[in-house]
Amino acid sequence: MAEDNHSSESHTDVLIIGAGPSGLMAAYWMARCGVRARIIDKNSTKVFTGQADGLRIRTLEIFDSIGFQHRVQHEGHVAVEANFWVPSPDGKLFRQGPFCSSKVNESPFHNMLLSQGRIERFLIDSIKEHSDLEVERGVIAETFEYDETLNDDPIAYPITVKLRTLGENEVNSPGGSGGESPQSVPSGLDRSNILPDDWDDLIQKSRSQQTKTETVKTKYLIGCDGAHSWTRKQVGIPLEGSSTDHIWGVIDVIPVTDFPDIRRLGTVTNAAGTILVIPRERQLVRLYVPVQVVDAASNANIRFNRSSITPEMIKERVQAILKPYTFDYKICDWWTAYQIGQRIAPTFTKDDRVFLAGDAVHTHSPKVGLGMNMSMQDGFNIGWKVALVVAGVANPAILSTYNTERQILAEMLLDFDRHWSGLFTENRPPEGGPGKTESMVKVVESFEDFADGLKAFYGASPLVCKLDNDQDPILGYGLVPGERFPPVKLRKQADGNTQWTTRTFESDGRFRLVILAGDVRDATQKQRVETLSQFLSGQLKEKVSPLNRYAAIPGRFKSLIEVVTIHSAPWNETEFFDFPEILRKLDPTMGWDYGKIWCDDACIWDRDCNGKGYEKWGVDRTRGGVLIIRPDQYIGWVGEFEYIDEMTQYLDGVLIRAVCGQ
Amino acid sequence: MAEDNHSSESHTDVLIIGAGPSGLMAAYWMARCGVRARIIDKNSTKVFTGQADGLRIRTLEIFDSIGFQHRVQHEGHVAVEANFWVPSPDGKLFRQGPFCSSKVNESPFHNMLLSQGRIERFLIDSIKEHSDLEVERGVIAETFEYDETLNDDPIAYPITVKLRTLGENEVNSPGGSGGESPQSVPSGLDRSNILPDDWDDLIQKSRSQQTKTETVKTKYLIGCDGAHSWTRKQVGIPLEGSSTDHIWGVIDVIPVTDFPDIRRLGTVTNAAGTILVIPRERQLVRLYVPVQVVDAASNANIRFNRSSITPEMIKERVQAILKPYTFDYKICDWWTAYQIGQRIAPTFTKDDRVFLAGDAVHTHSPKVGLGMNMSMQDGFNIGWKVALVVAGVANPAILSTYNTERQILAEMLLDFDRHWSGLFTENRPPEGGPGKTESMVKVVESFEDFADGLKAFYGASPLVCKLDNDQDPILGYGLVPGERFPPVKLRKQADGNTQWTTRTFESDGRFRLVILAGDVRDATQKQRVETLSQFLSGQLKEKVSPLNRYAAIPGRFKSLIEVVTIHSAPWNETEFFDFPEILRKLDPTMGWDYGKIWCDDACIWDRDCNGKGYEKWGVDRTRGGVLIIRPDQYIGWVGEFEYIDEMTQYLDGVLIRAVCGQ
Repeated sequence: MAEDNHSSESHTDVLIIGAGPSGLMAAYWMARCGVRARIIDKNSTKVFTGQADGLRIRTLEIFDSIGFQHRVQHEGHVAVEANFWVPSPDGKLFRQGPFCSSKVNESPFHNMLLSQGRIERFLIDSIKEHSDLEVERGVIAETFEYDETLNDDPIAYPITVKLRTLGENEVNSPGGSGGESPQSVPSGLDRSNILPDDWDDLIQKSRSQQTKTETVKTKYLIGCDGAHSWTRKQVGIPLEGSSTDHIWGVIDVIPVTDFPDIRRLGTVTNAAGTILVIPRERQLVRLYVPVQVVDAASNANIRFNRSSITPEMIKERVQAILKPYTFDYKICDWWTAYQIGQRIAPTFTKDDRVFLAGDAVHTHSPKVGLGMNMSMQDGFNIGWKVALVVAGVANPAILSTYNTERQILAEMLLDFDRHWSGLFTENRPPEGGPGKTESMVKVVESFEDFADGLKAFYGASPLVCKLDNDQDPILGYGLVPGERFPPVKLRKQADGNTQWTTRTFESDGRFRLVILAGDVRDATQKQRVETLSQFLSGQLKEKVSPLNRYAAIPGRFKSLIEVVTIHSAPWNETEFFDFPEILRKLDPTMGWDYGKIWCDDACIWDRDCNGKGYEKWGVDRTRGGVLIIRPDQYIGWVGEFEYIDEMTQYLDGVLIRAVCGQ
Repeated sequence: MAEDNHSSESHTDVLIIGAGPSGLMAAYWMARCGVRARIIDKNSTKVFTGQADGLRIRTLEIFDSIGFQHRVQHEGHVAVEANFWVPSPDGKLFRQGPFCSSKVNESPFHNMLLSQGRIERFLIDSIKEHSDLEVERGVIAETFEYDETLNDDPIAYPITVKLRTLGENEVNSPGGSGGESPQSVPSGLDRSNILPDDWDDLIQKSRSQQTKTETVKTKYLIGCDGAHSWTRKQVGIPLEGSSTDHIWGVIDVIPVTDFPDIRRLGTVTNAAGTILVIPRERQLVRLYVPVQVVDAASNANIRFNRSSITPEMIKERVQAILKPYTFDYKICDWWTAYQIGQRIAPTFTKDDRVFLAGDAVHTHSPKVGLGMNMSMQDGFNIGWKVALVVAGVANPAILSTYNTERQILAEMLLDFDRHWSGLFTENRPPEGGPGKTESMVKVVESFEDFADGLKAFYGASPLVCKLDNDQDPILGYGLVPGERFPPVKLRKQADGNTQWTTRTFESDGRFRLVILAGDVRDATQKQRVETLSQFLSGQLKEKVSPLNRYAAIPGRFKSLIEVVTIHSAPWNETEFFDFPEILRKLDPTMGWDYGKIWCDDACIWDRDCNGKGYEKWGVDRTRGGVLIIRPDQYIGWVGEFEYIDEMTQYLDGVLIRAVCGQ
């Protein structure tokens, strides 16, 4: 931390600029892995109202792996089904639907809506739980220097950034739409719309702080500083793409209306246009509304004057589209106006020393409910990689996978947005409606796996060992390297308690060697488990156990690899002590490690635990198999029990050998 | 609040002495209903480790109605199945089980284990969420005066208590077993065993406070001050019963053992005795262990010297009973020793002005895992009654139901404890084991509904309208006045989100008029709903709507009665606006009340919402019925749609007529 004089110099390993969802997600990993890091934000407080609200399945799974999914579940609003309202021949509106907007059996969770402000709250609380890292607010970066000659030196600090703490008069609280704040509703924050745990933060905002500057030298810089990213400009990476010709308004209101589906996800289309209806927590409904069409002939690079948009205009547009239903409101929690722009950076990194995440490298219309998800998953992806490299336990070569894994997804996001937004800006629905609905359902369905995060599309890299050809999957069709581990609810062998693997595979920085042990009542299979265990405990000749082979983070875990066993025999025909000792290690203080042996069997008191995990993964219940799961729960490697050399090869490419290994 | 001089006088409506689980539960209601109240505790901090840990189904339902069940679920350990280990003929031990220790389909929740300290945390947080009421710690009551002549005057303050704030040297943090602290393990509290949100509290403990006295005049006094209750002594109510001849030790440890079921609920019996094994959160296991038998001939009223018990002695006993398995530990989170005593107060109240709750009126062995549950349910029961009476909206006559409803349950608790504890203190298991297990299973099963709180046994009273004779239940076998409303997961008609009724029927102080509307597609049934709605909206001649008839709490709710409709037609064949306006009122600011119409239909994305609610309640899916649920979710009255006079009669006996009613 900076001294309290007016100018100082300091060192950190990771500097994160921007404490929105992506920046906080990256910071979580620094907190979790004990990495020396700083996170700054130019605003004086976190977000409290408005901004993003859509939470997709994979994001919720990540929250579970961090440990606050239950809080989201408690406060958020589920939105699985969508309705499309279109004109009927008699000039009224009628409902088409409900259509399922996502797969309902692929995850423990369902798409939800909850304000970005609450997600920031939960991330901040998680960071606090694991470290003393705090967001430094009202702080901006002013100058940037980067010494490329130091790039190959792992202990050097090639980046120098000058930070300035803003004075009271300079600092802003987050207003309308992200970095480019239009006039927003008078702040209007009071105890009625701020939850108690946020209220304390808001009060602290009034604390005055001293203006000061500080020169920070850092090994890595992560820019999560929004669409007008200062960081991106420093490294000369452009945002490519263009704005379209439509201006949209967004309002979060408590509606007074007789429209039947105001509390259901959906669209309403008539000749006046199409609006998107998004039910939210605390009786709020968000409406996305086209408010103005810029002259198409001259649209290029026009910065439209959003100050001409008012909530009244947005309301009138909603009223026109919802006719013959009535619409009004007295309470508006937040509103903004924006012009759709689809822009993307050609690369998300400068030399794998400076990384850009979230809106800093991809902007698009908010209507797909994906922006916050993509941004957080960017931060989640780069966070653990930088943390493990800085901690000296992972090979810096893995850093390049951030760009290869995330940039292609941002391209897909923009593609989805182009398809989806296009449906809103067509001037009128073909054939009075039904055709429109078909188009919408088709777009949603074709992008579903991508949008919900059920598929990641991470390509081959040191972190993802893809199969060479189109041969059958080694273990099962459900276990694909580069994709997330399909969640299953399992019983803990020792105590019979049930848990989703999304929670078991906690985001704590460790890789996981998952042994699908199969049916250990079978003598042959039991012997295979024994042999693999001999390898893990270093008893196989000329083979070094991966548990001792690699460096660990001092004070965190004894090994960067956690071994988790999931067997398929009936729970009550198996004992914890049936498994080799290396799979359930004894600690002289903490006793046997009861958390390591899991069972894929049905549980009489928990329907979600149905004993069908192996089927979901497509894995033979007797023979099982082995996989390595990355710290972010994506599958890195799959193989048979006997593929121990291949497994070692994968790990050697990722992790740093321990100095006293062998 | 007291002024900061050394002696002062003040008034409050309710004074609660003791901020353990029962006192906090009572205080929750004061916070929730906006009642002027104080809560004091002699200790300097809340509990952090040890003490009670068993959470029964009904308690978890209450937590859901308050709003923190998700936090318990996140941290606690489920214990549904139990194993009984008994000697085998070859002198070893073998497992009998698992046996289900409670019904698994009666509730959204399952019996859990979680430290009392966490429950206190959640209750304190809930109180803070709804009010500025704070526990005043390091404060004791010193003198008590009670002016019986004021008893009939509702605005008088018949009770005068002198409070004293303890100086730094006088104040204790909660140590071993409740009020009668033996030597306990060196406090040993540090960040490794205290969760972050408790840590801040612990730090604040070091704040010094000024010694001062204060004379407080109060309308009602609730004594939740433990087994040696100062309050109980002031009103001259004895604790009747006796201590038995057995001394027990309890330890919370992280065990190092090869006993296979150390992480499973159960008992282990051999010739050396019987121990109870209770798996807990954070790798802890609690063990209840008989350590010493006092000479039976002279047991009466002997205060045994617990200071002779050491953790080492307890450990050795465990080792003897677990043989041939090994047992040891390095980490002991908490331990204590106690003598079983079954004692109960003949009455729980003095003139319905002073109430006693929890250990103040019933003590027993902790081994049934019921103490904290009974105590919290005492506080839950008296809390809302006193709050509503003080707020001027409920008839003071309801206060007498506290004693009639809770005292009989405490008797049952002691009966259960006598049966259960007896099984632990029999000198040896008959016939080497199996007979013992049968006895244990039999006791557990015969007390199951009572212990889990699935049955409440609340008798006829102004608050419970029982049927006159043995006739068939009016609505359905599942809906019994005096019992809790059987929880069901329902879909909200307006948005399709699902919720358990335990959460819908929030503990906010309101009575609920629940209309089981049946199948509203049926024209006859729809007409019945219309007619009832006319009554509720005051359109039936010479009938006053219960919604306007009674006083409300200013600033809280417009009516003390919330109308909730649950229909049985398919969700997608029904519309929110199909229902009469009075059932889904329009507020000019907040819009239509979308939270009031619910549907008992299956939901494709939520298996728990299975559309079988009416079947669970035993109610005809077409005809439905009406019931009134008390603020604590117990059923007060049931009837057909047409029983509006009887409904009014019930409510007239409970609530205060509004001044401008009619």
